[in-house]
Amino acid sequence: MDVLSAARRLEGEGRSVIHMEIGEPSFPAPKAAREAAAQALKGGLIGYTEALGRPSLRNRIARHYRDAYGLDIAPERIAVTIGSSAGFLLAFLALFNPGERVAISAPGYPPYKTMLTAFGLETVEIETGPDTRWALDAAAIEAAHAKAKLAGVLVMSPANPSGTVIAPEALAEIAETCARLGIRLISDEIYHGLTYGAAAETALRFDDNAVIVNSFSKYWCMTGWRIGWLVVPDGMERTFERLAQNLFISAPLLSQIAAEAALDAKEELEDIRAIYARNRALLLDVLPKSGMDSFLPADGAFYLYADVARFTNDSVAFAKALLEEAGVAATPGNDFDRARGHRYLRFSFAGAEAEIAEAAQRMKKWLR
Amino acid sequence: MDVLSAARRLEGEGRSVIHMEIGEPSFPAPKAAREAAAQALKGGLIGYTEALGRPSLRNRIARHYRDAYGLDIAPERIAVTIGSSAGFLLAFLALFNPGERVAISAPGYPPYKTMLTAFGLETVEIETGPDTRWALDAAAIEAAHAKAKLAGVLVMSPANPSGTVIAPEALAEIAETCARLGIRLISDEIYHGLTYGAAAETALRFDDNAVIVNSFSKYWCMTGWRIGWLVVPDGMERTFERLAQNLFISAPLLSQIAAEAALDAKEELEDIRAIYARNRALLLDVLPKSGMDSFLPADGAFYLYADVARFTNDSVAFAKALLEEAGVAATPGNDFDRARGHRYLRFSFAGAEAEIAEAAQRMKKWLR
Repeated sequence: MDVLSAARRLEGEGRSVIHMEIGEPSFPAPKAAREAAAQALKGGLIGYTEALGRPSLRNRIARHYRDAYGLDIAPERIAVTIGSSAGFLLAFLALFNPGERVAISAPGYPPYKTMLTAFGLETVEIETGPDTRWALDAAAIEAAHAKAKLAGVLVMSPANPSGTVIAPEALAEIAETCARLGIRLISDEIYHGLTYGAAAETALRFDDNAVIVNSFSKYWCMTGWRIGWLVVPDGMERTFERLAQNLFISAPLLSQIAAEAALDAKEELEDIRAIYARNRALLLDVLPKSGMDSFLPADGAFYLYADVARFTNDSVAFAKALLEEAGVAATPGNDFDRARGHRYLRFSFAGAEAEIAEAAQRMKKWLR
Repeated sequence: MDVLSAARRLEGEGRSVIHMEIGEPSFPAPKAAREAAAQALKGGLIGYTEALGRPSLRNRIARHYRDAYGLDIAPERIAVTIGSSAGFLLAFLALFNPGERVAISAPGYPPYKTMLTAFGLETVEIETGPDTRWALDAAAIEAAHAKAKLAGVLVMSPANPSGTVIAPEALAEIAETCARLGIRLISDEIYHGLTYGAAAETALRFDDNAVIVNSFSKYWCMTGWRIGWLVVPDGMERTFERLAQNLFISAPLLSQIAAEAALDAKEELEDIRAIYARNRALLLDVLPKSGMDSFLPADGAFYLYADVARFTNDSVAFAKALLEEAGVAATPGNDFDRARGHRYLRFSFAGAEAEIAEAAQRMKKWLR
């Protein structure tokens, strides 16, 4: 956020800034989604919906599980949420009791810990490293559980900030371990669809009791629409429904309508993914030539999490200089990893191709 | 919710049902609001915004306090939220610690208690009665605090389900008492604008440290847009900003744009209020003639909370019969008041004039 406001200030002074600090597609929602919303606006009344979402959208998301993963999920298990944010909030409240422990990985998405703490839950941060390709694995979970009983584990694949994709076998092992130890598995699959090698597997394949968190924000380019979903375990639908009813009433109707249409816009969205793939290839080519050559796996999402220890031991100051001197905004790793983030920067390559190419040139010049 | 699904089932069978069970205007958002959203859709990118909302909307809401109440509120104190639901969620988390006590009135809006409980807070329900016109007052708050220390008090005026408006002097006394006893005052002002006598006063006039919860759902007819706001005390902006950033990222952008336009649509909205006023007058005329003659004050909102003890001691069964035999859906009081709700029904008169007139005739005939 501090980077963002510094960037805006520079832009206010007429400077050109390329935004690689924001985890947000620079492409609009699919045309069909925008048209569906425009059509609904003409209809007039934009009212509350069922607490877990319109039946047609829940059905359509269930069908997405058949199309994308070959899995049959009952539409009743789909809970439409106000972005993945509200999904986490509901899941944490519905699944855990105050004082219980939930494990996440470091580095990781910062709001996890803030939310868990706000709800009286204890966050267990498991450090990941190059040996596990920066992903949580079964052994690390079992070790943490042995040290202090875990009620839940949250995995994210593809991951923010590292872009790590957990291989199907590793995910199966995590699911098996969680089931054996009685740990609830939550799988943040918000970057599914955005992979540059093998597709990411859903945790549902290996654990029908896992809670899946997803959103239309990333692959479907619908951040500001605030629309996402959960897949909840069989038999927990009413718990989530009551909680959602009381905490949120329902998700925004225009966004529900648009999201349903977005699920049919695969061609347009695959074109956007191809742009990310080219942006990624360009950065992975240009940056190492300038000495920035150490990246966490960037198999998915739209992030490079670069090791900048060669240049600095203070990624906040480094990000500030990069912004002010080269006009490229990036996020210091401290946001994602308190202990080791001072030597990392996260770059988002979800921008337009020309912008990312320009950023690569600016960084190359500046790093020299 | 059970009434709503029973009503939908009957409609599925081809029966005509008049919906007086839903707390939602039957009128669309103002034309200017829908047009602003349509225009934004053409622009394409619907992205995240600042966590507390777009500066232009926060400025415009601050101006609303000058226009509607003659108060100068700094725009920095306005936090745009995803409906009043997210507003309560943020307020409860930001203001209180687990285990602390927050007082609300019975009858009252059911999600208050669910939310407080979910966050580990204790709900103190203060029974209100005809002697205080079914509103919390300073004496009742002081008595509850003497019994067990309160950290907060939540007042709602105009109230759901009773339509009670707290008089300015009584609100001033509540604010004074809370300030003196160190109790945080939260004022739910979601039905402001919808009064049929004197306008409701904001708690901000009497306590600059009160937290105000409001929304575009009711007066501005924007339920399904999920957009509201808080006024937070001076100096607490950063706390709310950090929490909102982590819990919600931001409110839906289309809704923020539409809400800003809605604030200028006073004429259209006053026409709708005039419809509610006529609906209310009609019901207050017709129903007593059929023996349903005991109402809580209906000075504001769009509810009649009727005492039906003359007909039944089981308002759930009564509502069911009214729905099935007369085709009028209403909400049993049990939802709002566990102890005494069995003798009350809530009727929403936010429907179209012809519908409410038809409902009055159906009820008149049925009650005979």
